[in-house]
Amino acid sequence: MKLFGHPGSTCTRKVLCTMNELGVSHEFELVDLAKGEHKLEANLKRQPFGKIPSFEDGDVRLFESRTICRYLSDAHGQGKLTPADAAGRARMNLAIDIEASYFTPHAMTFIYEHVFKRPQGDEKLASAQQSLDHTLDVLDGILARTPYLAGADFTLGDIVYLPYLEYLALTPVFASVKARPNVSAWWTRCSERPGWQKAAGR
Amino acid sequence: MKLFGHPGSTCTRKVLCTMNELGVSHEFELVDLAKGEHKLEANLKRQPFGKIPSFEDGDVRLFESRTICRYLSDAHGQGKLTPADAAGRARMNLAIDIEASYFTPHAMTFIYEHVFKRPQGDEKLASAQQSLDHTLDVLDGILARTPYLAGADFTLGDIVYLPYLEYLALTPVFASVKARPNVSAWWTRCSERPGWQKAAGR
Repeated sequence: MKLFGHPGSTCTRKVLCTMNELGVSHEFELVDLAKGEHKLEANLKRQPFGKIPSFEDGDVRLFESRTICRYLSDAHGQGKLTPADAAGRARMNLAIDIEASYFTPHAMTFIYEHVFKRPQGDEKLASAQQSLDHTLDVLDGILARTPYLAGADFTLGDIVYLPYLEYLALTPVFASVKARPNVSAWWTRCSERPGWQKAAGR
Repeated sequence: MKLFGHPGSTCTRKVLCTMNELGVSHEFELVDLAKGEHKLEANLKRQPFGKIPSFEDGDVRLFESRTICRYLSDAHGQGKLTPADAAGRARMNLAIDIEASYFTPHAMTFIYEHVFKRPQGDEKLASAQQSLDHTLDVLDGILARTPYLAGADFTLGDIVYLPYLEYLALTPVFASVKARPNVSAWWTRCSERPGWQKAAGR
């Protein structure tokens, strides 16, 4: 199988972590964001919205990191990274939807501001802080009951958060994470996994 | 099982259509958006972000419409609405991610403008038109090859689009849908299904 992406990209890192956790090997083709390669024809044929990553596994051609992660666990996961029961799978899907709708948009505001040095403006930063804090409260409540977001085991529902937390840890906003004991302990548990450390290039 | 939502809400309608297609019965509890009930404590206990719908099935308590739809197909679907093979499931997941990331944000701009009468401004409308047209081109390309977005059969990958198309059909922007023959024929096929017609209150 083949992954087209960039090693610093949050969405590429979700897929890399999933592959590492499952122990599947892949070829990696760099799409150089700094050179604008994601907007060139070669990438647009694989990812018509001009983003990364994209993915090939024989005849299966995919994009969107969450879709690729779900496919890897489904087709190559042998029961890993996805709960075995419907209630657990629902908790995993809920964690992924919370990430996409209520966590990542606010986290990215701070990652743009502090890591990628694209100023977001005071008003947007204040609103993002309030929203991120609320989402972290919700996650802290879930993690008060179970060690991972879908239950007893590490799943895709955890992986999707890791790239954003890795970058948030470089910003002052990380105080919001550290202030929530269950989220903080969960991030430590997840971030120490070799599969994540390799994906993040540590 | 119990669904808490509003019959006019796009996200509530996704879940209602899924239930109708699967033939599962439910109790419905109205969360009256006009009275702001979604922001009151009773709803916040079920949906901590103050939105609708939310859902209960015994001990399983969920929110986020895509998560609820996935759970219904998984736990009560007997093989319906989700492809039987990993490649088909990946196409379904890709359709859902395209809907969430590249279709719905732009469709909602026009639905707010024309249906809910909340002016969006000329700049935002122009940008949404361009983005929506591009997404419709991508969908038209998929639907040139298969009758439904995940392949030969109607799945959750189709259902997630229907509430937005139902409202877009009331706006001038629907010309963009009608101009794309595969999307237009697919919408006709999907919208004539009794499960959708009942969900939309037709």
